Amino acid sequence: MYKLIKKCGNARRGEFKTPHGTIQTPVFMNVGTLGVIKGAVSSMDLKEIGCQVELSNTYHLHLRPGDQVIKKMGGLHKFMNWDRPILTDSGGFQVFSLAGMRKIEEEGVYFNSHIDGRRIFMGPEESMQIQSNIASTIAMAFDECIPIPSTKEYVEKSVARTVRWLERCKKEMDRLNSLPDTINKQQMLFGINQGATFDDIRIANAKEIVKMDLDGYAIGGLAVGETHEEMYNTIDTVVEYLPDNKPIYLMGVGTPSNILEAVDRGVDFFDCVLPARNGRHGHVFTKNGKINLMNAKYELDSDPIDEGCNCPACQHYSRAYIRHLFKAKEMLAMRLCVLHNLYFYNNMMKEIRDAIDGDYFSKYKESKLAQWSGKA
Amino acid sequence: MYKLIKKCGNARRGEFKTPHGTIQTPVFMNVGTLGVIKGAVSSMDLKEIGCQVELSNTYHLHLRPGDQVIKKMGGLHKFMNWDRPILTDSGGFQVFSLAGMRKIEEEGVYFNSHIDGRRIFMGPEESMQIQSNIASTIAMAFDECIPIPSTKEYVEKSVARTVRWLERCKKEMDRLNSLPDTINKQQMLFGINQGATFDDIRIANAKEIVKMDLDGYAIGGLAVGETHEEMYNTIDTVVEYLPDNKPIYLMGVGTPSNILEAVDRGVDFFDCVLPARNGRHGHVFTKNGKINLMNAKYELDSDPIDEGCNCPACQHYSRAYIRHLFKAKEMLAMRLCVLHNLYFYNNMMKEIRDAIDGDYFSKYKESKLAQWSGKA
Repeated sequence: MYKLIKKCGNARRGEFKTPHGTIQTPVFMNVGTLGVIKGAVSSMDLKEIGCQVELSNTYHLHLRPGDQVIKKMGGLHKFMNWDRPILTDSGGFQVFSLAGMRKIEEEGVYFNSHIDGRRIFMGPEESMQIQSNIASTIAMAFDECIPIPSTKEYVEKSVARTVRWLERCKKEMDRLNSLPDTINKQQMLFGINQGATFDDIRIANAKEIVKMDLDGYAIGGLAVGETHEEMYNTIDTVVEYLPDNKPIYLMGVGTPSNILEAVDRGVDFFDCVLPARNGRHGHVFTKNGKINLMNAKYELDSDPIDEGCNCPACQHYSRAYIRHLFKAKEMLAMRLCVLHNLYFYNNMMKEIRDAIDGDYFSKYKESKLAQWSGKA
Repeated sequence: MYKLIKKCGNARRGEFKTPHGTIQTPVFMNVGTLGVIKGAVSSMDLKEIGCQVELSNTYHLHLRPGDQVIKKMGGLHKFMNWDRPILTDSGGFQVFSLAGMRKIEEEGVYFNSHIDGRRIFMGPEESMQIQSNIASTIAMAFDECIPIPSTKEYVEKSVARTVRWLERCKKEMDRLNSLPDTINKQQMLFGINQGATFDDIRIANAKEIVKMDLDGYAIGGLAVGETHEEMYNTIDTVVEYLPDNKPIYLMGVGTPSNILEAVDRGVDFFDCVLPARNGRHGHVFTKNGKINLMNAKYELDSDPIDEGCNCPACQHYSRAYIRHLFKAKEMLAMRLCVLHNLYFYNNMMKEIRDAIDGDYFSKYKESKLAQWSGKA
């Protein structure tokens, strides 16, 4: 389903066909944890700001409104009124970062809900069942996201278990896709490469999961405490062992610079809460780097957030007005900045695709990195 | 500037010409206290939901961002990017309802800011100056909003002072409109009728302020503790003494039923925080009356808030989805319900205008009142 169209160095320009339409890659997926982007941004807004793929969180939707509710409502696409691709994570990351009192066993993970404390079990089969109820376009395999640093012994043990979980995920997904009342019978499954910053474990794991011929491969367990250099090194190491005919997804990354560096290393899919979270605090991306709208110097600034930007915020409102809205604690402030930041990310991905198409990606990358650091 | 087009009983269909365009009356003004509708609703959204007039609060804008900032930014129209009429209240109501430690003197009112407690003075001249800096289309006279019940002696004394304040308002507004650096040199001034529920005071006051030949007349000091019957009686009493060639504005009212009853008594302008405030709590207006989306019975309800409604919420989202957003404390919930409720009000006003134009207002009113109470 993934077609590599062109390479520019290691940067890949591709197309990924899904039951909900074709994704042009490299792509940034806009994070709507609970089937909505935080900051009063709707699925209609997502279309306006150039979003191709929405990403929702299995753990969160399982707790609220419950995946059974979503199934009864006809799946997440219908529930949130979004007809383009949706990727759901496996719930694993939240189980390990949010939930309390977790206990990892061979069968899966026992943990307490962060909402009401009730005891919940989630293993590979449960994760697939929930994602099948949500009926996302792409489901992620259930894995353990290993903290960095961890001992090599622990990482080896964990990665081996995650591979066994992946086999169970694949089997369960095949079963679910063949059931008559499954909403999306063509649900895709991406495997996740783990191994912390141990190159040999990462490589061995990549070789193993590639054998399983999944719909795509993710690099997981990064942006959790390692340096940027370690992150880029791990990407370089892993990408070499992933097939040309499958998309590569770097989970939870990152800043605009991180994304440029990762594209340059062959990554196709990205997601991150950073643009929306920054926006909700008045930190907005511009062609000259990130600025903080709360700063007093913007009190009388009649310029848009980013001159020349075509987002709904920059088309209609000034820095001074949006700053006033933040100072007055008006929700519209967050909405406008989230719209701007997501537009900035989606538009950057479009520029990246154009740059690969036009064979000038390296130049594009260098000039952007220089601009953002104030050197251009 | 007001042209009476047609009457249907006492209900009036009119047009009010302003420097920012013509207002079709009866009209509901959408309240954007700080130059924005609470609930992440922008001036672009206001156009989409049929808003003709935006209303902002002088007291609030004086404190944040400060009317000097707004003047430097070119006035509120430019600051919030809204080119249709804006009405500003005088600050009087907030001084009497929000501010602390207030002391009323002949020259004006001394009070403490509800934000930082600093001592502020506002009299008729200050109110006009602030509204001139904001550069609204229509300024309201600075008055005392008298609590109900109050003694007749106090009401008489207060109303007499408010008339003296009105004379100072008019003089100051004339002066401001003639200054070279005034943004809106055609700013209009509405006087406000007061007198609590004492008919004789209301009538004497109406006669006095009508002599001053202002751009419009408001009925103030209602919806502050009196019964609906007392409110309707006061409207009946006052409207009789107001001229045919000036618009009549009932301040701070009210429910859809209140508005129908007041239109039937000759009122042209309305404003109220009720639709937006209700929306932020999930209470939404429908053709069958108000419903509470938090109710468990909407968990799997795939219908829109109000079948057949053309607002952005009803066009795209279900009760079940919006209920989920409320339960998950997602801001989009408030935005969608505020958009719906304001659309409901603006659309009701359009239906009212059509009903007067078509000579069936009485029938329209009776059928709506019956529907909303579940009797239709």
